[in-house]
Amino acid sequence: MTTKTVVNGVDVDQLVDTVGAIKEQPDIAKFRFRASNQWVNGGHSRTTIQSFYGAGQEDDTRSEPIVLDSDEPPVLLGENKGANAVETVLHALASCMSVGFAYNAAAQGIRVDGMEMDLEGDIDLHGFLGLSESTRPGYENIRLSCRIKTDASEDKLAELSEQVQKTSPVLDILRNPVPTSVHLEKAP
Amino acid sequence: MTTKTVVNGVDVDQLVDTVGAIKEQPDIAKFRFRASNQWVNGGHSRTTIQSFYGAGQEDDTRSEPIVLDSDEPPVLLGENKGANAVETVLHALASCMSVGFAYNAAAQGIRVDGMEMDLEGDIDLHGFLGLSESTRPGYENIRLSCRIKTDASEDKLAELSEQVQKTSPVLDILRNPVPTSVHLEKAP
Repeated sequence: MTTKTVVNGVDVDQLVDTVGAIKEQPDIAKFRFRASNQWVNGGHSRTTIQSFYGAGQEDDTRSEPIVLDSDEPPVLLGENKGANAVETVLHALASCMSVGFAYNAAAQGIRVDGMEMDLEGDIDLHGFLGLSESTRPGYENIRLSCRIKTDASEDKLAELSEQVQKTSPVLDILRNPVPTSVHLEKAP
Repeated sequence: MTTKTVVNGVDVDQLVDTVGAIKEQPDIAKFRFRASNQWVNGGHSRTTIQSFYGAGQEDDTRSEPIVLDSDEPPVLLGENKGANAVETVLHALASCMSVGFAYNAAAQGIRVDGMEMDLEGDIDLHGFLGLSESTRPGYENIRLSCRIKTDASEDKLAELSEQVQKTSPVLDILRNPVPTSVHLEKAP
């Protein structure tokens, strides 16, 4: 008979096993994630996400693709058929920090009884519209505010926050440059 | 009687009017986007996106919120209830570039008859798992490959690509640092 240690919905035994496996075989930590996108019309496009490579193999656990629509609101010439691209960036950061807090808390034995975040980002559209070379097209800044319901002390939470900020993939992607290549070709 | 000039599903007259209005009143280009996130369990969280501030007012065109779930795959201790955070980053980039190509092409009178993109990103989980201080937690690199069906010349497309890369908000967010603040507090 075996019992599982589950904290915050996280299988802590699996987490410990994963860390152990990576220490023995560092290459299984190399992941390659993928997405495909098809333009629909105007500001509306559709992204399909399904397979990825990780832990030394192609992942086939998603029998159906995950489909995500994106569009602009009417003021930006779209029809609200989905969140727009920069709102999606806030969603990516939120979900990353949520995983980070839940998993790291679980690893430290901190029980999370609830967690909520609010995010906002400021952007000046002079950049996107090509009206200014000195205005960056992206967010000037992003603010995230998180409330966690827990019995842990304020000190423990501050430590947790430091650890999560040091290890969050999307926070790193935002705070530091990611080499990103763009290749465009004419379809036959 | 008025006729609308619509190219690639983009109302070019509205685009020209928007640019004109911003030139007269630069402050209307300042936008603030928002998202809220609620943790569900383990790697699963749910983001809600609805209002934003832009063009000098609160936008109220979305009568219902846009709800997006995120989760990890089983190999990363989740249950595939949504794309994970770094896959969502690829979705954000794809949708941003799609809007960029469709809108800039429309402004230049280039008809787009179809557009598809494939994206991939490489990440080494030593960073996320706190197993290495020298491995960044986020993507080491991202590659985007785009095929556009169009009658425009190769030269025109190359120009378009340069313009879109210079003005894409999410590409800028990835290629350059965004000051991002994180505030954590204990819920009462």
